[in-house]
Amino acid sequence: MTVTRYFEEIPATLAELGVAEAPGTVLVYDEVLEGRFARFTAMFDRRYPVEAGEGLKDLSGFGRHAESVLALVGNASRADTTVVAAGGGTVGDFSGFMASVLKRGVRLVSVPTTWLAAIDSAHGGKTALNVGGVKNQIGTFHPASEVLVLKPMLFAVPEPEARAACGELLKMAMLTGGPLFEGAAAVDGFGPEEMWALLPGAVAAKEAVVAEDPREETGRRQVLNLGHTFGHALEAHHGISHGVAVGCGLRFAIEWSAHQNRLEQSQAEQLLAMIDDFPEFSRAALPDGIDSERLASLLDRDKKSLGPGRVQFVFLAAVGEPVLEAVSVSDVVEEAGRQGWL
Amino acid sequence: MTVTRYFEEIPATLAELGVAEAPGTVLVYDEVLEGRFARFTAMFDRRYPVEAGEGLKDLSGFGRHAESVLALVGNASRADTTVVAAGGGTVGDFSGFMASVLKRGVRLVSVPTTWLAAIDSAHGGKTALNVGGVKNQIGTFHPASEVLVLKPMLFAVPEPEARAACGELLKMAMLTGGPLFEGAAAVDGFGPEEMWALLPGAVAAKEAVVAEDPREETGRRQVLNLGHTFGHALEAHHGISHGVAVGCGLRFAIEWSAHQNRLEQSQAEQLLAMIDDFPEFSRAALPDGIDSERLASLLDRDKKSLGPGRVQFVFLAAVGEPVLEAVSVSDVVEEAGRQGWL
Repeated sequence: MTVTRYFEEIPATLAELGVAEAPGTVLVYDEVLEGRFARFTAMFDRRYPVEAGEGLKDLSGFGRHAESVLALVGNASRADTTVVAAGGGTVGDFSGFMASVLKRGVRLVSVPTTWLAAIDSAHGGKTALNVGGVKNQIGTFHPASEVLVLKPMLFAVPEPEARAACGELLKMAMLTGGPLFEGAAAVDGFGPEEMWALLPGAVAAKEAVVAEDPREETGRRQVLNLGHTFGHALEAHHGISHGVAVGCGLRFAIEWSAHQNRLEQSQAEQLLAMIDDFPEFSRAALPDGIDSERLASLLDRDKKSLGPGRVQFVFLAAVGEPVLEAVSVSDVVEEAGRQGWL
Repeated sequence: MTVTRYFEEIPATLAELGVAEAPGTVLVYDEVLEGRFARFTAMFDRRYPVEAGEGLKDLSGFGRHAESVLALVGNASRADTTVVAAGGGTVGDFSGFMASVLKRGVRLVSVPTTWLAAIDSAHGGKTALNVGGVKNQIGTFHPASEVLVLKPMLFAVPEPEARAACGELLKMAMLTGGPLFEGAAAVDGFGPEEMWALLPGAVAAKEAVVAEDPREETGRRQVLNLGHTFGHALEAHHGISHGVAVGCGLRFAIEWSAHQNRLEQSQAEQLLAMIDDFPEFSRAALPDGIDSERLASLLDRDKKSLGPGRVQFVFLAAVGEPVLEAVSVSDVVEEAGRQGWL
């Protein structure tokens, strides 16, 4: 089970951070942190800076990285080795995979430096590399022992990027209901302080789903895909950020759920009003539409595809009540046309 | 838990073999099987031949292999994907790692084609790749769902290689005691039939130890290292096979245990007489001695090293009673001199 801890300030020592000062402790980190959070990186004797991005995740470069990290770790035993991963999504995917295979698996401590990583990708144990340009073909389930969230790092994230991450935050709130949803619904204008306040609830909600299906075997984890089926297609087509894509996908799922009378109109209106606070989560903010053939082809390629022409979709029957259902790709395309995304 | 099944003949269909005929079933196999067991390999629609050996395990080539295997598996879901690995130790290490990271981990069915793999390496879940020429730096614990042992494959192994594997077989018998040991002690001249008869007991004994410590966290699995500390040094120095090295290491451990009066002389004599059936497990069969500095340096590099100058050693207090103890490298070297290995 992953423990998540929240820090108001950057701790001054590894002891305060709760990380062992062992010869096998190595920091794998986004090189941009060197300038912005030099005090943080300097706490570690063994450091391995990487360039964030999908290139980092290419399997072809992994051997060189592994050799370098092994050289830093030296003769430390498996039990004495810890990979501390500081960065956003790609650094986390890469470092998590590294930790999962180094000496047949060593302890991972994750320090997410983006909102998207802090809300979503640092939790749940998924690691991934790309093979031949295809994303996430190789990977493991290797949950971090600890996720350490440092407020100054998240508050340094530029505003548009922070706002985009609210796509995942709203998704978790609507998926979960309860105090997390009520807290999100009560927010009058999302800023970093509002996100920081909601973060522990969103993290706990995701961890609860993951705990029921840690290795994606029962299907339970698929509810986390709310907003993702349509969102992934927009992300691939428009090259927009994952957070914005999920925000748009969430809007799509709610409107479709309402149109099918799965979700009460009054509740749908409340949810859509929450999404309206983010003009970037709308068709109007996209550069253009997506044509129906392109959309169908992207949906068919989706990893949640159930064979040609069918895809798993997450509807919402109410706040806190996701419903998984197989739908035809042509129905998704038709609904996208009705909603005006094409 | 791994299920091991034994076949007297090569089954004619995948159904008889108990392997799903799914679009995601792919055979990763030692290319030499193509000629010798063409009927076996031909049962699989999707086949990936590899060249066995340490080169196969180099991380630098893994990306290319992964890309090829992914192309064969195509769009099959994770649940529908199975890697069937047919080969000896290096093919097993490589294919097991492949299965453990493909789509974040797919089902592995192991078909060991050497005695050493059938007795030892196909069981226990260890997978491994080499990094920059250093063995097994990267790996996972990913037990096979099933190990399928096909008698004709093992009986095709050349006699010297089969006999060498008795190093691991005797190790398991002496480590475990009971019917397995009594069976081994009663053998008058080891041949394939005698090995085949003892195989299920040796496999069950290893699986029982592994079940208590599947990820090498408690130290319990270290008893499997009986004969390996000294054996690994001989293997590295003389370039002898792993089985012969373990046989020599087993002799060393028994003689040392007896010399320290940990093991009764009469029992030591019985065990040494069993090892005497294998002239290859002796100093006399080695091309030359190993000098003390070289031995010390190899022991220091052992993965069971406890820091400079100390190493974990498995003594035998009686049949079925291994004793783990930290010893100094210089004591091992001194004992090697006393026994005449230098």
